[in-house]
Parts: sequence; C-alpha cells; structure tokens
Amino acid sequence: MIALSLIGIGTGNPDHLTRAAEGAMRAADLILLPRKRAETAELLDLRAAICAAVVGETARTATFDMPGRDPTLPYLDGVDAWHDAIAAAWRGAIARHLPDGGRVALLVWGDPSLYDSSLRIAARLRAGAMPVTVEVVPGITSLQALAAAHAIPLTGLGTPLLVTTGRRLAAEGWPAGTEMVAVMLDSGCAFERLDTACTSIWWGAYLGMAQESLLAGPLAATAPAIRDERTLLRARHGWIMDCYLLRRDAARAAASDR
Amino acid sequence: MIALSLIGIGTGNPDHLTRAAEGAMRAADLILLPRKRAETAELLDLRAAICAAVVGETARTATFDMPGRDPTLPYLDGVDAWHDAIAAAWRGAIARHLPDGGRVALLVWGDPSLYDSSLRIAARLRAGAMPVTVEVVPGITSLQALAAAHAIPLTGLGTPLLVTTGRRLAAEGWPAGTEMVAVMLDSGCAFERLDTACTSIWWGAYLGMAQESLLAGPLAATAPAIRDERTLLRARHGWIMDCYLLRRDAARAAASDR
Repeated sequence: MIALSLIGIGTGNPDHLTRAAEGAMRAADLILLPRKRAETAELLDLRAAICAAVVGETARTATFDMPGRDPTLPYLDGVDAWHDAIAAAWRGAIARHLPDGGRVALLVWGDPSLYDSSLRIAARLRAGAMPVTVEVVPGITSLQALAAAHAIPLTGLGTPLLVTTGRRLAAEGWPAGTEMVAVMLDSGCAFERLDTACTSIWWGAYLGMAQESLLAGPLAATAPAIRDERTLLRARHGWIMDCYLLRRDAARAAASDR
Repeated sequence: MIALSLIGIGTGNPDHLTRAAEGAMRAADLILLPRKRAETAELLDLRAAICAAVVGETARTATFDMPGRDPTLPYLDGVDAWHDAIAAAWRGAIARHLPDGGRVALLVWGDPSLYDSSLRIAARLRAGAMPVTVEVVPGITSLQALAAAHAIPLTGLGTPLLVTTGRRLAAEGWPAGTEMVAVMLDSGCAFERLDTACTSIWWGAYLGMAQESLLAGPLAATAPAIRDERTLLRARHGWIMDCYLLRRDAARAAASDR
C-alpha cells in the first residue's frame, strides 16, 4: 500500500511552508524529487534544500528523471502521453525505493490544485495495479505571493477574478465579464497582445526568493519594461517563473470608446 | 510609526499557518482581535487559540469591537462607511495600546488578497495622519482547503478558473467562457439558480476544522443535500463558513441542447 502526499510548498521560500506541509514531509518514508532536463540544477537544489531545512539529515529522498513532453504531438495528446510517462517514472522509483509500500511525498511548487498535474498523474497510479491513497496539502501559490509582494487584493468588492494562462490570454484576448485577470504559465508576453486602455499590470518573478523582481503600473508604460526584465533575468538565472495580475477599469474603458 | 502585518491564517486549522505567518505573529508587539456582534464567541476564541498555540502566553493581544454594516444604505455606500468605521476602530485600539508605535498584526481568515477588505481598510489608516507601513503574509484560502479536502484540481489542462461570489452567480448565472467556477461568500444557495445539466459541484464547510463537512456530485442530485446540510450545520454551530467549486462540461451541455 502506498500513501501518496502531494505537498504544496509555495514558491521556493521555506517560509511559505505550512505546518501541515512540514508535518507531511517529516512523516514521509520517501520524498521523490524530479530531475528535469530543461531545468537548471537550481530548482532541484532548491527542493533538496527545503527537505534538508525541514526534515534534516534523516530525510530519505530519491531523484527520478523527469520525462520530457513530445513537442511533435498535438498539445493535449502530448500532455496525455507525458503524464503517462511521469506516472511510470513515479511507479518505478516507488517500487525501487519502497518495495513494501509506505508514505511517499512529492513537493509541488505552489498548490497542487492550481495549474499542476500531480493529481491527474496520481490518478494514473490508482488506475494501475498499485494500491494508492492520495492526500493533498495546500500551499501558497505564486498569485498569492504576487499579491502579498505588491500588497494588493486580487478581487474588488464582490467582483470576480479570472485565473487563466498566457496561452489563453494571447488566443482569446480580454475575457468577458471580469475586471481582474491573473495570468500564469506565460512563457511569452501575452499581455502585449491586449488593448492597453485603462489597464494596469502587477508583475512578479521568483516570488518570495532572493531574486524576486517586481514591476507594476499602467500596462502601456510597463509592458516594455517587463519584456526587458524577463529577458535579462532569464539570461542571468537560466530559468524564470513569473505571473501577473491585470486590472481593467471597464466603465472608464467604455466611456473612452464613446 | 506603525508597521502593520496583515497575516493570512488559513481557515481555522493551526496547521494551515505558514512559517512566515508564525514569524509575523511572534514579531508583533500587538495582535488585534476583532469582537463581532453577529459572530459567535467561537471564532474569536479560535483566533485567540491560534495566538496561544503560536506565540504562547507572551502574546500581547487586544480585542476591539467590530462595527456593524448599516444595512439601510445602498450596498457599496454601506461597505464604504463600514470600512471607515473599522479603520477608526483600528486607529483607536492602536493608539490606546501602542501610543509610541510598533508592530501590529491582524489575523485574516484565508488570504488577505481574496475577498478580504483589510488592505482597503489599511489604506484608510495610511491616508490619515498615522504613519503606517503595510506587509502582507499570504495564507491558505478556503478554496485551496476545499480542493485539498476533495483531492481535486481547481483548473483543467490550461483552462481558466473564475472565482466569484454567491451574489454574482445568483444575479448573472453561469459566467461566459469558463468551465470551472469557484464560489465564495454565498449566504444563500446561489447554485440552485443554475441550469443543472452537465454540471457537478464540490462543496465544503468548516474546511480544515473538526466540524468539516464535504459533499460532492452531480449538481441536480447534490444541491438539495447541500441546502439541508447548511441549514442543519448553521443551526448546530450558530455560524457557517463554506464555499464550493462548480464544473460544467460545456461541450456535453452544448451537444445535449441540440
């Protein structure tokens, strides 16, 4: 029997860890750490450092090679095959290190509920021959770290927030019916495709880490600065994780159209 | 000089606290606890218990009477006047207990960025004569606790999530352009106004607490059970905090309309 804990660890700052996350890490017989080809060693090291800080030298960790996604397949087919391959990698590592079962923990950036596929991959384990229970420990998401760093709310008085991806925003433009849009997983600069009128942006990268970078202001004036900063930081660190909040004053935008 | 920390404390389970939240509570010269007329003693006691658990007997706490919102005013006017009154209550308590300035902490359910007005109220302090700096410490929201308790994701593969209120959902129906809707602040049962076709619901109350209650399933079959459970639990505990996630399979709903 395998008890799998998917533990949200926040955005790389050990201070983001909750008591529940620390408890689940300490209770684990094995903490599985992915080694990604496309990722610099820094992120693996960061996860290992969090293990060491929380559990200490007794932490039993094992790394596994994270499969890559086949970019030649159509997007959803590619993701499906990729998740199958990750499930197989988890299964192999667990069988190797815990042949008699036990508690396995996986550390998830942010929160397992938001743009993370660990739950979908875990479902593949459960669908296989391996008896698995799944527990989720919530963690601070990059959007929360962004809002905290800028000291801004993500919602107005009773108004909605749309959380979406850079891909969607670029393809579909400003979503109907909302003045606040939080954007994750934007490997480009989808905000550049938007009409900038009456729109503001709050952007952050490496949130909560020593490298944290923040920019905010009217979209028209701030977008070029964010593009430049992203290019510079990605070159400097070899990787970047960022997100942003957009707010459009719909009433003012409509008035200026008249 | 006043250094104000708005600390997200999760949904009432001390295990939701982050290391940063614990650190900010310990560093505070004063933790302000609101005493609300409409609230049972249980929630004030819960905040006090969290202070005692984290800081211990050295915790310097002070309660202040939370003003009520004038229900005779139009909604936004009423909220505006209410926030003015809360800011005055904070100012009074701070002047009384920390006449020479210092570090003040306020404990916020969930996260200060999501449907919480502490930042807007803090802005009123800054606009007054009192020199104030504001720091935000993110916390686990009820939506994250909901997703964790049901072990479900809040987003699909690259698909958006709309976070909204019961009031909005009841007034506007299903929002355009999204298959996933998370609903907070629903004092009624706004989900009952929706077309139930191809729609599922995941509901939770007192998330992370001993009283936690969860229900999930197809909306048509589950809505009456949630209504009954809310009535029963509110009568039993004297208060309720709940939220839910709705998912609509838009492709299937469109196909069944043909």
